This record gives sequence, C-alpha cells and structure tokens, in this order.
Amino acid sequence: MPRIAVDAMGGDRVPCVPVAGAVEALSNHPDLTVVLVGPADQIEAELSKFDYDRSRIEIVHTDEWVEMGESPVEALRNKPNSSLSMMVKLQKEERVDGIFSAGNTGAMVAACTVHLRMLEGVRRPAIALPLPRGKTPVMLCDGGANVECRPLHLLQNAIMAEALLRCAYSVESPKVGLLNVGSERDKGHALAKETYQLLEASGLDFTGNVEGCDIFQADVDVVVCDGFVGNVVLKTAEGFSEVLFKTLVSELGSGMADIGVDLAPFKALLNGGLQKIRSRFDYSEYGGAPLLGPKGVCTIGHGRSDQKAVANALAWTLRMIENGIQQELVDSIEREMEHVGSTTVGQRRTGQAESRTSN
Amino acid sequence: MPRIAVDAMGGDRVPCVPVAGAVEALSNHPDLTVVLVGPADQIEAELSKFDYDRSRIEIVHTDEWVEMGESPVEALRNKPNSSLSMMVKLQKEERVDGIFSAGNTGAMVAACTVHLRMLEGVRRPAIALPLPRGKTPVMLCDGGANVECRPLHLLQNAIMAEALLRCAYSVESPKVGLLNVGSERDKGHALAKETYQLLEASGLDFTGNVEGCDIFQADVDVVVCDGFVGNVVLKTAEGFSEVLFKTLVSELGSGMADIGVDLAPFKALLNGGLQKIRSRFDYSEYGGAPLLGPKGVCTIGHGRSDQKAVANALAWTLRMIENGIQQELVDSIEREMEHVGSTTVGQRRTGQAESRTSN
Repeated sequence: MPRIAVDAMGGDRVPCVPVAGAVEALSNHPDLTVVLVGPADQIEAELSKFDYDRSRIEIVHTDEWVEMGESPVEALRNKPNSSLSMMVKLQKEERVDGIFSAGNTGAMVAACTVHLRMLEGVRRPAIALPLPRGKTPVMLCDGGANVECRPLHLLQNAIMAEALLRCAYSVESPKVGLLNVGSERDKGHALAKETYQLLEASGLDFTGNVEGCDIFQADVDVVVCDGFVGNVVLKTAEGFSEVLFKTLVSELGSGMADIGVDLAPFKALLNGGLQKIRSRFDYSEYGGAPLLGPKGVCTIGHGRSDQKAVANALAWTLRMIENGIQQELVDSIEREMEHVGSTTVGQRRTGQAESRTSN
Repeated sequence: MPRIAVDAMGGDRVPCVPVAGAVEALSNHPDLTVVLVGPADQIEAELSKFDYDRSRIEIVHTDEWVEMGESPVEALRNKPNSSLSMMVKLQKEERVDGIFSAGNTGAMVAACTVHLRMLEGVRRPAIALPLPRGKTPVMLCDGGANVECRPLHLLQNAIMAEALLRCAYSVESPKVGLLNVGSERDKGHALAKETYQLLEASGLDFTGNVEGCDIFQADVDVVVCDGFVGNVVLKTAEGFSEVLFKTLVSELGSGMADIGVDLAPFKALLNGGLQKIRSRFDYSEYGGAPLLGPKGVCTIGHGRSDQKAVANALAWTLRMIENGIQQELVDSIEREMEHVGSTTVGQRRTGQAESRTSN
C-alpha cells in the first residue's frame, strides 16, 4: 500500500487545490494512501466538501508553512515545523514512500538535499522537467536544482533523467542531447566541452549537442544542462508566452473586429490554442517535475497547479514508487560511472572531473 | 563622409539582399558611401537592377566567402580572402568607418576579435542584442560572443551595452539588470553573485537581478548575461516561436473551419500577429546586433535578414559612427573600471575578478 505525503500548504491556492487533487488521486488509485501535511482544521474543512474513503487519508498537523516568495535558506532555518519540512521528515523516517509539494521550489530542493541526503553515488540533486511532446516528454535536466555545475554533475543529470524515462515513462532507449551553443562537438564553454566527452564515454545513447531552438522540437529524449541555464530557459519560455498572449489577443482581436468577424467563438479558440501552447512547457501535464538525487521519491509541482495537475503529480509519483525509481537511479549511476571510468578516454576525463568536483 | 563596408556574401540570400539593402541605405543617407565586398561580377549584376549614385558605391572584389554553417576557426584559417575577412581588413586599415555582415556570426566574432583587437580596457567582445520593446529596445548582452565569462567580463558587458544605449539609441539613463535565477541578491552561481557585487560597486544604474520571464517585458534597459546563456535564451525563444506557429495555425485553423468561419482573412491576421511576435526577438528591426569591444564599428545581422533589415542595420551602424560610439565605449570602460576600483567593496572585488580574468 503506497503512501504519499502532500504539502497541503504548497501552491498558489492552499489548502483547497492540494486537498482536492489528493482526493481525486485516491479515486484513481485504489491502493494509494495520502498523508496531508498542514493545519488540520483547514484541511478538514476542505475535505468535508468531498465524498471519499476516510481510511485512506491521514492528516499530520502543523501551523507553519513556507510562503512562495520566501528565502529557502531562511525558511528552512526559521520554520523547522513548516508543512514542507514536516513532509520531508516523513520521507526521511520512511513513514511515506514519496512526497509532493507545489510550493516554494527552492525550499523543497533545499529541504530534500539537507534532510534526505543523496542516493549512493549521486553528487547533486537535479530537477527533471518533463516538457510535453507527443506520447512521451522531453526531459530537461537540470531544471534549476543545482546552479553551480561541474561536468560530473551534468553527466549524472543525464544518467538520472535517462533512468527516469526508462523506469517511469516507459521510453525504451532514451536519446540524450547536451544543450550547447552549436551542434559541433567543440562548441561551448569548458563545462560543455568536458561534459561532451564524459557523455561520449558513457553507455548512454548520447547523440551530441542540441541548441535552444531544439528544446521544444527535439529528437532527443533528454536535454542535459546546468540548473542555471535550465531555470533561465524555463522562465524565458514562460515570459515569452505571456508577451505572446498579450500581443496575439490585441493584434488578432482588433483585426477580427475590423473585418466584422464575431469575436466570441474566436476568443474561445484562441484560448484553447494558447492553452495548448502553454502546456508545451507546463509540466503539470506530467504531474510536476521529479527531483532526482535525494533519498526519497520527491515531486515538485508548479505554484499555479490546479486540482488535475496535483492528481497527475501524485499519479506519476506513485508510478515512480511502484517501478522502483530509487533503485534504478542507484544502479544506473553505478553502472554508468563504472562505464565512463573503464573507457580509456573516460578514465582520464572522469579523473579530471572527479578532482574538480570533490565537495 | 562615413564609409561602411558590407559583406555582400553574408546571409541566406546573397548577394541580392546585401546589395539591395546597401542601395536602400544610400537613398536614405545622402552622406553615406558603401563598400561592397564580394565577387565583382555578381555584385555588378545585382546593382544593374537599381537606379543609384554610382560614385557612392565601391566594390572590393574577392572570389571567396564563408558559408553559414562553416566552422569559424577553419573559415578564418582556410579562407584569408573571404569577403568577411577582407571587410574586416578594410576596417583594420581604417579604409572604412564601420562594417556589416549578415553571415556566419561565429566567423564575424572571430575575425573581428583576431584582426581588430580590443578597444583600450576591454577584455572580451560582446554581442549587444536589441530586443524590440516600445520606443527603445531591451539590450541583451552578451548575445553569444563570449561563452566563457568571468565577473569582470559581465561587468564590461553591462558598461558597453549601457554606453551603446546612451550614445546611439538616445536612452538617457539606462537601467541595468543581471539575468539570474531569482530576484534576491544572493541568488545564482558564483559568477552571478560576484558580478552582482561588481555592478553594485559601479556607477551604473544597476537595479538588481532579473529572471528569464522578465526579458521580454523587462523594466530594465540592459539585461546582462554570459554569451552561453544569451545564445541559449535567443535560440530558445526562436525555437519556441516555431513550435508556436505550428500549434496555433493547426489549433485555431481547424477550430475556425469547424465553426464555419472563412479562413482567408484569419490567416492573414494570424500571420500579421505572429510576425509582430517574431519581431520581439528578431533584431532586424534594430538593424542587427552591434559587436562591442573590437576596434571598429561592427554590426552582425541575422542570416535571414531581408533588404529592409540590411538597410536598418546600416542606418544604425552609421548612427554609431556619427555618435562616436568607439570613444564612448573607451571612456565608459575607463570611468566605470575606475569607479568600481575606488569603491571599497569594489576594490576588493575587482581585485579578485582581475586575478581570475587575466588572459
């Protein structure tokens, strides 16, 4: 009986959205038990709106929570009993099999890194950001967990995201591309060049460099980058889409009025079309973004997640648990690190990378 | 009488587009003389289509040119007489006041860096990418010239882009923002944190960090980043727009058909609206992207530049020449480096940065 803890106070609309999403997940997955962490009275008030099997919901009470804009470091220090920290502790004590929060991403990464520690062989956490594309997503990794990357971290981002796609998303042989400023192998900064060589020495299906323009129409399954670039890419796409909405609505709207077309059905269509576009980089379709590396199955949702997004997030978290993602990550890291180490070129390179990446 | 050299073989459609753009620029600017560099017979054939003052066009003949996809390093090595290299040599010998190419960006950066050397006090070249926004652009700097950045390089990117906006774009007190993964001052990697302190110690109007989502709706005039991130941001926006076009046309198109609306006027509107969106990151509106740092007024155009874009590029290059951009850059670098050095915090920080950035 898998158990997943949910941060009832994580997200833009709390606790209503996390609670509603949890109840929806229960009805979809008969085996699941959900542990809601947050103020018991508020959670109970939300729960009273639904019809559900009470034996499959538990509440862990706390009066503290982390705000969306709060400094992760200060939140961790000053709010040891926040719903987020309490949830992470449940995972640490193995009282749950996985955790989910649509709250403060930085605080979630920090809490998981500090309290859960890393899986054997893993150096740094990485957010695997699933960008919708046909049947299976493109996995952008790292989406922002680790902004200070070494080549070895990027190699491990690739290994973990590839293992995730195989294990939980049923992609048979995921192809890996390295985000760079050009397609040729000698492109980019030292970080990119050294990572290229590590990826080449690995057993992964590494197909070479990909560029920014390829991210949303990639013929690879994993796009590897450091967390700084991943964060900027994600937010650039989000910001660009905002500007786009405004420009399109005003340009097309006034144009349609000029030629005497009724605007009502057009606006509905436009909204539908734009929603589809938004979903190109809105990971809610894939139930949030897995945080890979920490000892625990951790999923991070977007602050603006709705009930369906939360339910999807829990469905994918459950799938990771049931498919044994933790063991798969450990095995993949061990296998690939050994592979890179045993390759002649790889041996030298890994040695270099290791010496630079020692904590 | 300002003279600008144009790479007649730089761009997707050559020599027709560069030649047509040059002729258009001549008619807009009675003082201008253009030097077209490329195969004389092909250039003459294009010129024969136009009515213009022959005394204001010169041709420097060469049979060699750099292809768009060619390796910059190899192009420089193997094609010393390419139209691009010949053009750069004209600038070096001060036979022209400025140069423009819509060809291979990497080759242009490499040729200018190697042959022209840097202005006094400038460490590295940077592409100032003007992103259209109302009356004046947001200047993203560096757009991809220098992928291996130190804090001092980022400080100089800010100084040069700010000087450019004042000198050539008539922005009175440009505000400077640092592209980062969050708005708080302690965000980001070491490069971002150290750059933050340098910018703070400078005399620039530095307003703090900006995020990816702010680039296209920024309330700053300069967005500072390293060339790796700048390139990825630009290409991500371009790629995202491609996907967007396809999704919108198919989604809206089929929707309109379903409700029985005539598609023809709609498609025209959609194209117009999308064109406006494309122009949000298409620097052709501002006549290409100035390459700041080398001893010479150098402008880089997008490969897909049309006649109007080339004419605009030459207009802005002319404006930079007439407003004395080179001296302004040297003065600004000297003033700000002194300012940062004289600030207590700055002195220490610059010292650190200097020691790391020595060639």
